[in-house]
Amino acid sequence: MAANTWGELFRVTTFGESHGPAIGAIIDGCPPGLALSEADIQPFLDKRRPGQSRYTTARREADQVQILSGVFEGRTTGTPIGLLIHNTDQRSQDYGSIKDQFRPGHADYTYAHKYGERDYRGGGRSSARETAMRVAAGAVAQLYLAQRLGITFRAAITQIGPHHADPTAASFDWLRVPNSPLFCGDSDCETAAAEYLKQLLKEGDSVGARVRLEVLGVPVGLGEPVFDRLDADLAKALMSINAVKAVSIGDGFAVAAQRGSEHRDALTPAGFSSNHAGGVLGGIATGQPLIADVAFKPTSSITQPGITIDKNGNACEIVTRGRHDPCVGIRGVPVVEAMAALVIMDHWLRHRAQNADVKHSLPTIG
Amino acid sequence: MAANTWGELFRVTTFGESHGPAIGAIIDGCPPGLALSEADIQPFLDKRRPGQSRYTTARREADQVQILSGVFEGRTTGTPIGLLIHNTDQRSQDYGSIKDQFRPGHADYTYAHKYGERDYRGGGRSSARETAMRVAAGAVAQLYLAQRLGITFRAAITQIGPHHADPTAASFDWLRVPNSPLFCGDSDCETAAAEYLKQLLKEGDSVGARVRLEVLGVPVGLGEPVFDRLDADLAKALMSINAVKAVSIGDGFAVAAQRGSEHRDALTPAGFSSNHAGGVLGGIATGQPLIADVAFKPTSSITQPGITIDKNGNACEIVTRGRHDPCVGIRGVPVVEAMAALVIMDHWLRHRAQNADVKHSLPTIG
Amino acid sequence: MAANTWGELFRVTTFGESHGPAIGAIIDGCPPGLALSEADIQPFLDKRRPGQSRYTTARREADQVQILSGVFEGRTTGTPIGLLIHNTDQRSQDYGSIKDQFRPGHADYTYAHKYGERDYRGGGRSSARETAMRVAAGAVAQLYLAQRLGITFRAAITQIGPHHADPTAASFDWLRVPNSPLFCGDSDCETAAAEYLKQLLKEGDSVGARVRLEVLGVPVGLGEPVFDRLDADLAKALMSINAVKAVSIGDGFAVAAQRGSEHRDALTPAGFSSNHAGGVLGGIATGQPLIADVAFKPTSSITQPGITIDKNGNACEIVTRGRHDPCVGIRGVPVVEAMAALVIMDHWLRHRAQNADVKHSLPTIG
Amino acid sequence: MAANTWGELFRVTTFGESHGPAIGAIIDGCPPGLALSEADIQPFLDKRRPGQSRYTTARREADQVQILSGVFEGRTTGTPIGLLIHNTDQRSQDYGSIKDQFRPGHADYTYAHKYGERDYRGGGRSSARETAMRVAAGAVAQLYLAQRLGITFRAAITQIGPHHADPTAASFDWLRVPNSPLFCGDSDCETAAAEYLKQLLKEGDSVGARVRLEVLGVPVGLGEPVFDRLDADLAKALMSINAVKAVSIGDGFAVAAQRGSEHRDALTPAGFSSNHAGGVLGGIATGQPLIADVAFKPTSSITQPGITIDKNGNACEIVTRGRHDPCVGIRGVPVVEAMAALVIMDHWLRHRAQNADVKHSLPTIG
Repeated sequence: MAANTWGELFRVTTFGESHGPAIGAIIDGCPPGLALSEADIQPFLDKRRPGQSRYTTARREADQVQILSGVFEGRTTGTPIGLLIHNTDQRSQDYGSIKDQFRPGHADYTYAHKYGERDYRGGGRSSARETAMRVAAGAVAQLYLAQRLGITFRAAITQIGPHHADPTAASFDWLRVPNSPLFCGDSDCETAAAEYLKQLLKEGDSVGARVRLEVLGVPVGLGEPVFDRLDADLAKALMSINAVKAVSIGDGFAVAAQRGSEHRDALTPAGFSSNHAGGVLGGIATGQPLIADVAFKPTSSITQPGITIDKNGNACEIVTRGRHDPCVGIRGVPVVEAMAALVIMDHWLRHRAQNADVKHSLPTIG
Repeated sequence: MAANTWGELFRVTTFGESHGPAIGAIIDGCPPGLALSEADIQPFLDKRRPGQSRYTTARREADQVQILSGVFEGRTTGTPIGLLIHNTDQRSQDYGSIKDQFRPGHADYTYAHKYGERDYRGGGRSSARETAMRVAAGAVAQLYLAQRLGITFRAAITQIGPHHADPTAASFDWLRVPNSPLFCGDSDCETAAAEYLKQLLKEGDSVGARVRLEVLGVPVGLGEPVFDRLDADLAKALMSINAVKAVSIGDGFAVAAQRGSEHRDALTPAGFSSNHAGGVLGGIATGQPLIADVAFKPTSSITQPGITIDKNGNACEIVTRGRHDPCVGIRGVPVVEAMAALVIMDHWLRHRAQNADVKHSLPTIG
Repeated sequence: MAANTWGELFRVTTFGESHGPAIGAIIDGCPPGLALSEADIQPFLDKRRPGQSRYTTARREADQVQILSGVFEGRTTGTPIGLLIHNTDQRSQDYGSIKDQFRPGHADYTYAHKYGERDYRGGGRSSARETAMRVAAGAVAQLYLAQRLGITFRAAITQIGPHHADPTAASFDWLRVPNSPLFCGDSDCETAAAEYLKQLLKEGDSVGARVRLEVLGVPVGLGEPVFDRLDADLAKALMSINAVKAVSIGDGFAVAAQRGSEHRDALTPAGFSSNHAGGVLGGIATGQPLIADVAFKPTSSITQPGITIDKNGNACEIVTRGRHDPCVGIRGVPVVEAMAALVIMDHWLRHRAQNADVKHSLPTIG
Repeated sequence: MAANTWGELFRVTTFGESHGPAIGAIIDGCPPGLALSEADIQPFLDKRRPGQSRYTTARREADQVQILSGVFEGRTTGTPIGLLIHNTDQRSQDYGSIKDQFRPGHADYTYAHKYGERDYRGGGRSSARETAMRVAAGAVAQLYLAQRLGITFRAAITQIGPHHADPTAASFDWLRVPNSPLFCGDSDCETAAAEYLKQLLKEGDSVGARVRLEVLGVPVGLGEPVFDRLDADLAKALMSINAVKAVSIGDGFAVAAQRGSEHRDALTPAGFSSNHAGGVLGGIATGQPLIADVAFKPTSSITQPGITIDKNGNACEIVTRGRHDPCVGIRGVPVVEAMAALVIMDHWLRHRAQNADVKHSLPTIG
């Protein structure tokens, strides 16, 4: 019952508005003994940070994270980790002109109705700025999972508008993703998409994107049954990211056209013969890579004028100035990794709570 | 932290295995004063019940629900509602031959690894039989929401293998869905799909499906921000249904190819000009219909032999007998409606907890 | 957010009214691999069962528990354990005459105001009958904790009206408690209290009681900080038992008169020099016995007429017939043990979720 | 599952150590539209602040609270309220000498065992400094409850060592409590206790205390049944305060000696005839004042040397320097009020979630 908290055992609670003095988070439940400093978290934030390339918003935030508690002499103590990022570039004057209008495609109309009050500066709480704290908290989870369990996370752009990259193709190189300004693994796709984005910027428009997520090293047996399946929690985590409109696991919507004889992955002593399932069966990890795809809608804030109403119900034209990305999906890539890490971390703690004393000699083929 | 509980304020906790003596649920948090009897719930269960047509499993369960508590003199009292369904047709002898093998596409291998113990009879807890209690609990939510808020739920098959029905086409009739053996709104699609399923049964194979969900009458402002967005919770709820591999909201994966100028729905005094968003912005309902699509994978239990390993790690062939649906998506339709109702019901109670005293005079264009 | 659920990781959800067809519970989160049958749980229920002696209610319930799920081939599977007890002796005619009156000392008036609806038969949900399911669920926790961790629970009557037993005195024998009809460890106190209860029955009156709880074998380090301290959760668990009005840990209210030099328990290589703290410091177990005391109020249902109002607000006299205990504290003894077991079990799972990989070589003096 | 979070719907999550850079809290779930500024919260913190009189620790903290989010143009927006207090007087050199020893009566030994890591500076997370954030969050709850529902909170010292004040006596004046340096309502008791505390300071010793809490204006029907009773949650909340060892409701432990004919409070058209129950029946408020008593143990940090062991298990003498209160119960008074406010606030939101549409015409005699 906490809209602003993720997780049951590795709990991340965030606060902060786009144009308030600071955003922050509390991580409650991090195991003690993890080496952790601000310098360990910062690279994850830098990856998401605005102003990195011409394809992301010109807003320039240092996004320097501070650890306020929960770490002593370089290691986590098991007490809550307080994280804080000051907002340094707020320019709230950009937004004053639209305070009485509801921006189409944004949460202005829905927040106003829900709460009766609304911080109109840059979207307030509904701004994607909130995802910075997801990335900071996800960094802690990624550090723990990599060091203790060898679990790693990678995400990449696989579509921007009409331009596609196939993550299973030979031309797709995961190693180039971290250095790609579009987080794209295919150089042809990246080149074409970059041209496309330049054109969009000229036209004052934006575009959607598709992102592929892969989690490697998930141990077989991780996950929960029934309502809290690993894939269900992953679906929620990814759908909770600003602008995401679709989530699929493994073969996704293509399964509607598949036959059982084609879809089911055979088990052999040498491993699964395929991974149509995307690494999860009955909500629990098979030990294969966990595969998901996500769709981001196009940025709603564009410089082309839009049609809307004001708070008195009158029709009006709206022009969003501010600073925005032509394709929010790009900066969504590290957020996708972060949310996946929060899901896996929480499930790991839940799993060992119940099953730490399970002993068996079953074959592991993952 | 309860894999077998859905919801925070309208909490549904279920138990039961495919071949145990009974399955059951407790609903905790139902508002008092709702008229409720077993006869009110039974029609929802009958819709999902196996043995309804040749296209669903031949297992014959009466699925008669009993209310054990929480209702007095025909109305809910606000105390927990205990629901029970006895398993009447268990035939556990069907399954004994596969107790040492892991059925491909099923949760056998993952459950065995997670728990070290496994009830191999018909999938045990991982069987879709568990969804009967979702439907029973969802029925209570649907009754409340319809009577108190005028919110209604409808779902339909829109794809079975190569056969598609377009829910936005003139040929699609929502009124025919409840009486269609395939829960399909398009008679041509239904006829073709029925032929296709007959052929699959002959071949001992199965097929996936796509289901459209629509929720009508959701009030603007319903939902939560950040992690517990209405669409995020809906994504989890739907992905938690057995065999579901993908969930999308509004235009779904198509948004990756859309431009901002095309996607954003304009607000006008007469209403939204379109519904690309699928009825939710920033995680909170716009008042338009809530639109989602779901993909079900093909049934993994087919009579064609499969390749797998046994619990000693040896390769073996597996033949599933038992009784199964050629297309689990069909019986998934009422489960989709039920899960959506659980999501909306829980969000309604959460919403009024925080916002019951909100007063404003904003325009409503839903 | 579930008034009818106890616990985060070993979750117990109960349902059922005094005069409904059945009461039941779901345990979600029990570790797999625990040997469990109905015969293992039944002795715990028998201890609490009404009709055991002349000092407890004459209501005769077999209280035979059924396991409906979660156990396969004699061991828990990690899936939810469904428990059911049919109500066999309901006699609802006893209660019809008071359906329009609010019994003093009972929850009639408060439930009616909260819910607008009320099952007036025997107190409905507010009846102490509900505690039978706590005992059944607590039995599972006690079995696990005894077998896996060597943690044991014992509670005894230490006061009934003017008659006291000192649990630290030489005359107090814990071994006689299970066979004492009053669960009393001091034979003199038992004799005197038994006489006193006979007199009360003649007078149509009732009396309160005090219960001592001791938990032995709690490992040092178990518990949580800040809000979910082990003693805080224990206080809630015990205060949640019908008729309990006070809970104390260690020296309890006496600490208000103590000096720091007297209260603080010295640590020595041979162990703590005393246990004023009652086995917990900062919310976390010291490894010493966990000591708590609880006060039960006298049964409110007595045959002496009482003064009250009816649902129209008119003054009236009320005579409770039904069947009741002269001292509910007696049958509260196994409920105290059960609730303590639920607390320890839940904390054990929480503890290992976060701290399973903690390694250190600190001295243990517990 | 969040040891550092209180509440389900009005959720308060805190972080921070005694000697870290800052302590903070997030309130998630505060209703929108409440007038709120830092100046509204500060008086509550000032009441608890150290250095207020010679009877509380000499540590001088400004304890200036900052609101970082959730408030816009002077009113809460319904989004999370971030609160921060910088630690200005840390003097960590005071504590270095005891970093390898376990202070008796403190959580040093238990935290070290639980986490394997320990911030030894001033108790780290286990310091009572943490309660400042409870007071800040409780202030928001108290403001809401007073303005919207007319519910008010008051607590007072009723015992310090051998000196008692009877809150029901004519000599007890609630109006003098806020201005009393000992938060005491009886001037004779205050004078005697003040002398006693001076003597203790000379002797380098400390003493326990008893605190009475009263909540006025609680509406009949507020609370939950079974596990989450209002009194059970209150017991947990109060027992979770540092140094609290006992909690009672209404007549408390005295009920063990009472008869049913004496204890049960008669209902009359003019109101309840007495309040032995302390304002709650079956876990739900009767509308009478909610009455609770709490015992605080004496401060464990005293200047008299103590006996303990070090982290290698060797016996040693320990001398605590630092700055400490001779009687922590005094500064516990505003914390008791704060925790009660968090309980009532959370129950209010839970209550209206389920029961907002309850209609009845029952008599209210509160």
